[in-house]
Amino acid sequence: MTILTQPCLEINLSNLLENFFTLQKIAKPAIAAAVVKDDAYGLGAEQIVSLLYGVAGCHHFFVAHAVEGAKIAPLADKAVVYVLQGIGQDNLEIFKQFPQLIPVISCPEMFAFWKQNRLVGRKPVIHIETGLNRLGFREKELAALSNADKNEFSLVMSHLACGDEKDHFMNAYQLDNFNKLKNLYFPKIPASLAASDGVFLSHDFHWNMVRLGAAMYGINTAPYRENQMKNVVTVAAPILQIADLPKGQFVGYSATYRANTNRKIAIVSIGYGDGLPRSLSNVGKVFFKNGSDLHEARIIGRVSMDNIICDVTGIDNLQVGDMAYLAADFYTLDDMGRDAGTISYEIMSRLGKNTRFIRKYVK
Amino acid sequence: MTILTQPCLEINLSNLLENFFTLQKIAKPAIAAAVVKDDAYGLGAEQIVSLLYGVAGCHHFFVAHAVEGAKIAPLADKAVVYVLQGIGQDNLEIFKQFPQLIPVISCPEMFAFWKQNRLVGRKPVIHIETGLNRLGFREKELAALSNADKNEFSLVMSHLACGDEKDHFMNAYQLDNFNKLKNLYFPKIPASLAASDGVFLSHDFHWNMVRLGAAMYGINTAPYRENQMKNVVTVAAPILQIADLPKGQFVGYSATYRANTNRKIAIVSIGYGDGLPRSLSNVGKVFFKNGSDLHEARIIGRVSMDNIICDVTGIDNLQVGDMAYLAADFYTLDDMGRDAGTISYEIMSRLGKNTRFIRKYVK
Repeated sequence: MTILTQPCLEINLSNLLENFFTLQKIAKPAIAAAVVKDDAYGLGAEQIVSLLYGVAGCHHFFVAHAVEGAKIAPLADKAVVYVLQGIGQDNLEIFKQFPQLIPVISCPEMFAFWKQNRLVGRKPVIHIETGLNRLGFREKELAALSNADKNEFSLVMSHLACGDEKDHFMNAYQLDNFNKLKNLYFPKIPASLAASDGVFLSHDFHWNMVRLGAAMYGINTAPYRENQMKNVVTVAAPILQIADLPKGQFVGYSATYRANTNRKIAIVSIGYGDGLPRSLSNVGKVFFKNGSDLHEARIIGRVSMDNIICDVTGIDNLQVGDMAYLAADFYTLDDMGRDAGTISYEIMSRLGKNTRFIRKYVK
Repeated sequence: MTILTQPCLEINLSNLLENFFTLQKIAKPAIAAAVVKDDAYGLGAEQIVSLLYGVAGCHHFFVAHAVEGAKIAPLADKAVVYVLQGIGQDNLEIFKQFPQLIPVISCPEMFAFWKQNRLVGRKPVIHIETGLNRLGFREKELAALSNADKNEFSLVMSHLACGDEKDHFMNAYQLDNFNKLKNLYFPKIPASLAASDGVFLSHDFHWNMVRLGAAMYGINTAPYRENQMKNVVTVAAPILQIADLPKGQFVGYSATYRANTNRKIAIVSIGYGDGLPRSLSNVGKVFFKNGSDLHEARIIGRVSMDNIICDVTGIDNLQVGDMAYLAADFYTLDDMGRDAGTISYEIMSRLGKNTRFIRKYVK
């Protein structure tokens, strides 16, 4: 028997690379840029940028914040790093220090700041609004730009609201808007509309550059069909204790689970402090391997900060130190997201920030 | 006008210290230990341990994992650091390296491991089960211990399931169990039963040591009455853009919000990638300061990874670069937890792990 205490996060870089190539091929001849914001969705921007730059020849990266760009720019010295949240007083020095960083400008106020603080040799991206009603110049703001203003930019981009639903009316609506605004205001510069989900819609959405994020990390961004992507994330944690749960007893904080029959429980060393959603309380699934057999169990009671309690009644040969699988190719973060009432993106971003995992990169 | 891009997390160490002293006073003469697991609930174990050790004279700390203990032990060199997840093959070397770490043993298998790998000069804690049905020796396992076994331990502990509900039957039930088991099996060693919530129940729950966590960080662990604790966490993020939202248009991913009248929106630079729960989509609150006035607004549409969209219709004088407050003394993480369908503990743990914040410790 092995006594173990720490949860484990495994990131499969081979699968990530294969996903990148699959997406790149679909979008060809559009440039395949990699979205590595939020520390590469929590999976480690430094490892993933090194891989994509060194092995896949990816030369275009997107981050949200300049501080994120500063971390990866030195690892990909000929790459361009686009900063989606743009430029302002609080990150101007970072832009000055890292010439590879290109701000994405999303409103007239930020553009005015840019014009007062232009960085020689850099041409920003303009973000235009086409239906998501999030960041981006609105049409009346585009109409107010002078020709000189328009010549400031090197790329025009927008973002889809419903690209993960193939037949959603918003896709055609946003594509029409993008077509119209791009041709009217920026006829001569390259364009980017699609993130991962847009790649699967049709070639019309690809334009000159696609921004590969979620799907590259294994998330199914086209959930109207089976996932075409390979799984990247495996989460496992050891059983700390196995115990009988007698009929009538309660489990966990606030006693939200009561045993109606005698049960057997396993206490597993992972909790919301490790990024497991607390909304998996009383509904989450856990898997145990026994040779090639896979046994499914349920989380019972509340997920606590460091532990979960699993109903393992009827699963034989389990012992302390065995690993419980929380996410793997047979139960992906998409599945977990469904059970937790959220999306895999949010869970991935949380799990990856956990410093208590034994973290392993598989090549 | 100031253009800003980064969200901000402010941690008020004076209030944290005051909370510690308040709790310590209630629990006197019990020893006040500080629970700093999960990087001090995400708020920064190193800063908080240094403060509690240096200023408050706290000499007893609890972490979940040995790796967490290794980070703080050097900052509090005369302190004892209890490791709740215990000891095993995967952290034995850390225990050897840091003599201050004391494992909490919660089952016979781990105890057997301990006996094979005893560390000279250290006496572990025994965790006993009294009703939570999580970690801890069950009674039949206690009954199987020899006298020599029982003499291995320096402290006996258990944990309450429903300490945040003053009149919950589980409190008396667990206290009775603890009394009985403690006196029967460990009559001569000190005992610890209460975490923050137990401190507020009654003196009977205090025993020799209380474990101060959530309440010290400002969370209301006695929600049956007004919070006695000072707020520790403030979260703010700048407005990146202000725009009109015409009647009939949709907002955010999956177009989950539609404007039934003309609205004004603000796009704020914080999202679930920063630890804001995605379950605040279409329900979360945001506040804007205008001198001493406080204006309340709603998050509309889905929370995305880097941004939220807020309905700021009717709030005058707002401009790009103004700060939106997501959590503060007027809307605490407890309030946010209620709106997000979870508890403040989970949100605090997530927010604190965000590396994109401008993080500020106020003394």
